[in-house]
Amino acid sequence: MTDVETIAAAIRDVPDFPKPGILFKDITPLLADPVLFKACTELFMARLADERIAKIAAIDARGFLFGSVLADRMNIGLVPIRKKGKLPYKSHEETYDLEYGSATLAVHEDAFSAGERVAVIDDLLATGGTAAASCRLVERAGGHVAVACFLVELGFLNGRQALEGYDTFAPVVF
Amino acid sequence: MTDVETIAAAIRDVPDFPKPGILFKDITPLLADPVLFKACTELFMARLADERIAKIAAIDARGFLFGSVLADRMNIGLVPIRKKGKLPYKSHEETYDLEYGSATLAVHEDAFSAGERVAVIDDLLATGGTAAASCRLVERAGGHVAVACFLVELGFLNGRQALEGYDTFAPVVF
Repeated sequence: MTDVETIAAAIRDVPDFPKPGILFKDITPLLADPVLFKACTELFMARLADERIAKIAAIDARGFLFGSVLADRMNIGLVPIRKKGKLPYKSHEETYDLEYGSATLAVHEDAFSAGERVAVIDDLLATGGTAAASCRLVERAGGHVAVACFLVELGFLNGRQALEGYDTFAPVVF
Repeated sequence: MTDVETIAAAIRDVPDFPKPGILFKDITPLLADPVLFKACTELFMARLADERIAKIAAIDARGFLFGSVLADRMNIGLVPIRKKGKLPYKSHEETYDLEYGSATLAVHEDAFSAGERVAVIDDLLATGGTAAASCRLVERAGGHVAVACFLVELGFLNGRQALEGYDTFAPVVF
């Protein structure tokens, strides 16, 4: 199997989570196995190798798991994009629609230098609402979104539509 | 300055967050600077070098930022300890008291092998409620808490009292 196939095979399907009818893609088996976790990191690094990325923007909370390792390996800064109310300093906020209601993400106003090339990182691309709000936050804080990276994409949810205009990478597609 | 002093000096004080009268210790300047972020990682790794750690248990959400890098560097598995409702598979839960109300943390039941030596990682030790609940979760899932590690300790909140019986490491003390 290729690395992508091995990673895909290790992701655990959990039916009816977080609610009936949803098949949740559980990445904790990948985290628990250092060989698989490193294989995920290396997929991201191969994609980012020629992008001259200056900062990793990691999305709260599972994006932190992959984004922090990338920042460490690539020797660049790490910026957390957080749920509203979690960042202490002056922040930009972006609100986006959910199936029921809305959610708000935030990033510190001083997180990026002007024009800095940024990779936005999360574990999973679903409808793209969280990802698109995160990309807008990077831009509002002065960064340039070079690429948005996800380990897993749920293709049937058309998240790439929400990310139109952004280079998007997601090696594992369900 | 020593590494600990340099790290301490880079932590940003944000007054009146999350509420009036609280002086918040903002670690985002450490994350943004790869030299400082690596210095934090190396403090943790030096403490863990002789502990024969088999898994990192990282506490949602800022613990993920440090814990995932440690798991990658130490070539061991990573287990997320999450807020209730976030983990999809069968989980143990621990509820603990907050100043007003309570909070519940969870860990997957299959996260650890029996007796496996675990390092619990978070960014900050405050009153110790979150940390103690996390240690209990590791034990309920079959792990042995070898050491609980925090970058920062707010000494005046006596968090070590809540962690009595656990080896505790926190290089930066305010």
